[in-house]
Amino acid sequence: MRADGLAGGHGGADRLGELIPVALRGMAAGVAERGGPVPAGGPAAVAAALVAERGEPAPAAADEGAAGGGESGSSDVGSAELHRAAPAPNPAAGPGGQAPAAAMPGPAPAAGNGALPRRGVGAEAALGQLSRLLAAGSADPADPACAAHLHCPPLAVAVAADVVASALNPSMDSWDQAPVASELEREFTTGIARLCYPDADHPDAVVTTGGTESNLLGLLLARENGVVQPVCGANAHHSVARAAWLLGLPVPIVVPCDGDRLLPDALDKILTPGCVVVATAGTTNTGTLDPLPEIARICHQNNARLHVDAAYGGMALCSETLKSKLDGLDRADSVALDLHKFGWQPVAAGLFAAREAADLGALTVRAEYLNADDDTEAGLPDLLGRSIRTSRRPDAFRMAVTVHALGTDGLGALVERCCATATEVARRVDEHPGLRLWGPPELSTVVLRPVVADEAGGDELVARVRRALLEAGTAVIGRAALPTGPGGANQLWLKLTLLHPHATAADYLPLLDRIAATAGAELVAGRESPVAS
Amino acid sequence: MRADGLAGGHGGADRLGELIPVALRGMAAGVAERGGPVPAGGPAAVAAALVAERGEPAPAAADEGAAGGGESGSSDVGSAELHRAAPAPNPAAGPGGQAPAAAMPGPAPAAGNGALPRRGVGAEAALGQLSRLLAAGSADPADPACAAHLHCPPLAVAVAADVVASALNPSMDSWDQAPVASELEREFTTGIARLCYPDADHPDAVVTTGGTESNLLGLLLARENGVVQPVCGANAHHSVARAAWLLGLPVPIVVPCDGDRLLPDALDKILTPGCVVVATAGTTNTGTLDPLPEIARICHQNNARLHVDAAYGGMALCSETLKSKLDGLDRADSVALDLHKFGWQPVAAGLFAAREAADLGALTVRAEYLNADDDTEAGLPDLLGRSIRTSRRPDAFRMAVTVHALGTDGLGALVERCCATATEVARRVDEHPGLRLWGPPELSTVVLRPVVADEAGGDELVARVRRALLEAGTAVIGRAALPTGPGGANQLWLKLTLLHPHATAADYLPLLDRIAATAGAELVAGRESPVAS
Repeated sequence: MRADGLAGGHGGADRLGELIPVALRGMAAGVAERGGPVPAGGPAAVAAALVAERGEPAPAAADEGAAGGGESGSSDVGSAELHRAAPAPNPAAGPGGQAPAAAMPGPAPAAGNGALPRRGVGAEAALGQLSRLLAAGSADPADPACAAHLHCPPLAVAVAADVVASALNPSMDSWDQAPVASELEREFTTGIARLCYPDADHPDAVVTTGGTESNLLGLLLARENGVVQPVCGANAHHSVARAAWLLGLPVPIVVPCDGDRLLPDALDKILTPGCVVVATAGTTNTGTLDPLPEIARICHQNNARLHVDAAYGGMALCSETLKSKLDGLDRADSVALDLHKFGWQPVAAGLFAAREAADLGALTVRAEYLNADDDTEAGLPDLLGRSIRTSRRPDAFRMAVTVHALGTDGLGALVERCCATATEVARRVDEHPGLRLWGPPELSTVVLRPVVADEAGGDELVARVRRALLEAGTAVIGRAALPTGPGGANQLWLKLTLLHPHATAADYLPLLDRIAATAGAELVAGRESPVAS
Repeated sequence: MRADGLAGGHGGADRLGELIPVALRGMAAGVAERGGPVPAGGPAAVAAALVAERGEPAPAAADEGAAGGGESGSSDVGSAELHRAAPAPNPAAGPGGQAPAAAMPGPAPAAGNGALPRRGVGAEAALGQLSRLLAAGSADPADPACAAHLHCPPLAVAVAADVVASALNPSMDSWDQAPVASELEREFTTGIARLCYPDADHPDAVVTTGGTESNLLGLLLARENGVVQPVCGANAHHSVARAAWLLGLPVPIVVPCDGDRLLPDALDKILTPGCVVVATAGTTNTGTLDPLPEIARICHQNNARLHVDAAYGGMALCSETLKSKLDGLDRADSVALDLHKFGWQPVAAGLFAAREAADLGALTVRAEYLNADDDTEAGLPDLLGRSIRTSRRPDAFRMAVTVHALGTDGLGALVERCCATATEVARRVDEHPGLRLWGPPELSTVVLRPVVADEAGGDELVARVRRALLEAGTAVIGRAALPTGPGGANQLWLKLTLLHPHATAADYLPLLDRIAATAGAELVAGRESPVAS
């Protein structure tokens, strides 16, 4: 009865109170083992460590498995430490180091024999061991050197709120599974709708799993309003084309960009009624914002719908000094917003706002067991039309707690801090003899390129620098292909996406030096062992 | 700097360790306030309590808001207790009590003025207050009287594991955001694939947000394999038709059922190549399983694809005594499975298994910043094709921890216990003078109807009994429309879905009496105040 104790509610909080410290101790041990921002050695080392942790497959266990019909024999977890199993950090930054491209193996082998364990090890053992493993083998977004992606370090207040949501487990598909959770969600999404559309008569918003689902909803609502053709910039997120594919819509027409910004004149030339335009307020590659007022005007003139993917930039609305970047947003029919980017929520914390609440009527669905007409008429709120999912976690709860804790002013201040840090880091890139800056940041993304890549190494060197830092466990940085090459051909750049709200520019300066040094080392390594390139 | 402290990883665990107890204390206070399985008074009381908690809207605050441009003035949370604001439990079970249909008002008003608070109250205050509110206003799945839906009480071990996942925040869309989280997911989903397809050469599985997304994937993979027509039983979950709509496929052809079970002969008559059949292993209404071996044979003969929605019944595979109910499952092309039902995970814990891993290739997508070809060639695993989402929470982690803690044998024992309890409760329904049993449970769902509904009250009375128990804060029970009326017309039944792994039949017997008594009282109330019916 120990391993299967319940959490929360009716008599279960005691067991949860016992187990959370076990999990946190495991996590702390794993963080200490890892040391750096990401485990060294790449995929092979992580997979090997997992296999080592499970112990060597014993012949006796294999026999037992054959006799027992599916018995795995792998449920007893060994005591090997992840840092013992992982190879020593690759001295890739030094001349003569093994080239990372050669060190990286093929896809990691699956650990164990593939079957789930039949016998359990108990809650404490499983929780302690796997929490330690997860922490030891994680890329840590709370480390400033983990700066590749729109992947934020979550706030403690949001994580603590999530514990309550998990333990009480309201499911957002019917009121009788989520009485106050649905009210709190409604209150929060109303606030988000007001944030995006301060002057609209009937805005509304719903919770999603992220920008990908929100962009899908943008195209879905357009489709249900008779739109047949998506249009987006060359800078749009891949989820736009993927949503069109899922929804059975044509492949989006792609409008050219300049400086990672959609060209309004080019849009104007191709737009017809029956189109939905997806503009971007904060591109994934560079954080650039499309010219929303002009795009909104062109859409209006052409009777086209407009959806804005503000998954990255949307929360700049909370900053008095930055919100003007989003002028025109309130003229869009719908907006995607992610609080697991600026917002510092654990994934997932997506939102989708619509200027006209009635547009969300497209999601209406009846299921007799969840929202029968007579129940709705008797006053039970209908939640099923608030999502394309059915069972749904109350992600709004931790978002609401966070906003109540910090206020939108507090969140806006964190956004400002990240953007200011990026501006300062960009200035230092521009001054750095070994690095070239793509352009000034509009949000918190700094795009750069080692100068040796221009001289000799090319895109391949740029890609190897990123992998070398990752393999060495030194840093996690991103990449972006941008049309800066001869004749507008794509060139590969390195990317720092700065979402750490407490890191300063000084925290990133050693990383700039390391990028430049690694580029030099990789260039030498590539010349010495051409087979590895 | 207190409200915006980070969780986990690099130096953040201390703040998390401070805040989690605040959240748990708030939760415990809210559970104590609530007392019963669900707050009394229905939607109006819950909404009113939320408004009361925020305090009366002060005229001064409204003035400030007009001057400050969006200032909400509602961030200071009052101290009213939810139980004070809620009306006293409605004595609906007694003769002459106010009829619930009249007591239930229209949709609940939104609390506050709609804007998000600009100024925060700090992490401790926000967390303590909102955690208490959420707990006080929740339907508690850990209370046996909360038995309406496939809405389980989560295990403490799963919730504790989720804390680590939230704090470390790996995002599953690229390896460099989730090094070991992706390996642990791969290990776990391989095990799930083996559970569903023990004899297949190359099965695979991916994590989803639940049965709704898994059913969508089932139809999507079919569509990408050239299928043009979905087919499902009249017993299928509403998400099947919704998925067809989302994907731009035709409305599913609906095959008749008998006893909530798809009729194979009827399927055989309509099936053609180019169809995908969705069968159900555990219907939402009654927990009945479709005859999978016959359906698989018919699909094979007609060269049709087969997807099985085993969201409810799938984890019976973990029980040696129950697994034969799922014979034929391994002949399906794909399977939906939910560990937030049997599996006792907090939402979401969906899985989608495919017999042929190659079928999942339909999800392949390239995004230069996440899975560039040269990175993949250099050994970085490509995660983007493992989901239709992009950023993605590591829900597999808490599932894997749970399976390691309990083993599949342990989980299977919990499934068996729920099913045995349902069988015993059904026997007691059958013996109850005031209740009629729909039929013997196949899994853990007991479907019943007050006999007075047959005599006088009809479906309307059945619906009112459910709402009266909910309104009184006494119980949360479900409803199911089943074709048991004259000429096969739908009749409304009440439903108990027993997912509490530690409740015994004795825990449910008072509820049976209360259902019967409430039906009698509602019948009298309906006669006395016909305007309320």
